[in-house]
Amino acid sequence: MRAVIQRVKAAKVTVLDELVSSIGPGLCVLVGIKASDTAKDVEYLVRKILALRLFEEEGKRWQKSVKDLNLELLCVSQFTLYHRLKGNKPDFLAAMKGEEAQELYNQFLDRLGQSYDSTKIKDGKFGAYMQVHIENDGPVTINLESPEQKDTDREVDK
Amino acid sequence: MRAVIQRVKAAKVTVLDELVSSIGPGLCVLVGIKASDTAKDVEYLVRKILALRLFEEEGKRWQKSVKDLNLELLCVSQFTLYHRLKGNKPDFLAAMKGEEAQELYNQFLDRLGQSYDSTKIKDGKFGAYMQVHIENDGPVTINLESPEQKDTDREVDK
Repeated sequence: MRAVIQRVKAAKVTVLDELVSSIGPGLCVLVGIKASDTAKDVEYLVRKILALRLFEEEGKRWQKSVKDLNLELLCVSQFTLYHRLKGNKPDFLAAMKGEEAQELYNQFLDRLGQSYDSTKIKDGKFGAYMQVHIENDGPVTINLESPEQKDTDREVDK
Repeated sequence: MRAVIQRVKAAKVTVLDELVSSIGPGLCVLVGIKASDTAKDVEYLVRKILALRLFEEEGKRWQKSVKDLNLELLCVSQFTLYHRLKGNKPDFLAAMKGEEAQELYNQFLDRLGQSYDSTKIKDGKFGAYMQVHIENDGPVTINLESPEQKDTDREVDK
């Protein structure tokens, strides 16, 4: 499971110019789910995203997390993070498909809410054509990926 | 060398609310440079970024590149793409430092211009505290990394 985490002053999602959701200072998280991801991958990313020290404290960088400072998260599902290139054309066969992906993505949102504060967790519109407006603050962008699981672990989780 | 490539309707960079540069439709490219990167890494990313088929044509997805459609690129240097975690605190020792990084980053911008059209290549303000405003269109986000070079190759390039 992958996340492109951008520290933001503000972020919002619109669909056909209509506001879906918005946040102030915090993190915009683009989330990619691969076909073999499980609850274990969700747990890893939830824990890391909430604990990552990407915010300043008294002018000193990398001190506080989004949770420490009670900030917000805007999450958006992003299957293109599991692209492969055939020449210069991307394909996304490695990404988990439709309903199964939506289910695990919703589980990810739920676990963020349970581990922090569900009122601080905003979402886009799964599968829709969206505009994600990101005011990247710094800029600060971090790529995270859940560690590869041995097949035996994976069977137990399904 | 790494790039987080976001397809955009528009993007701009401000420093203390002053506009540094802006683009319309095209690509916002956050660029990370590691300590051992060379001109070879620059060439790989320049070639891929300009050729990646991330744009539609007549409603069919993944057909055209930024160059095919004569669109713009906003590039911003982003050392945090080479983070390592000590617990939950990131460190960036793997990233190439200051002047050396700025030189290779400028080489990257030059090569983009030479391979495409320098008037279409915009930049932030290297090393400054910036706000990067990104209207991610889709969203579409692709992570690219130049292939690992064998040490022998690397010596020849320096």
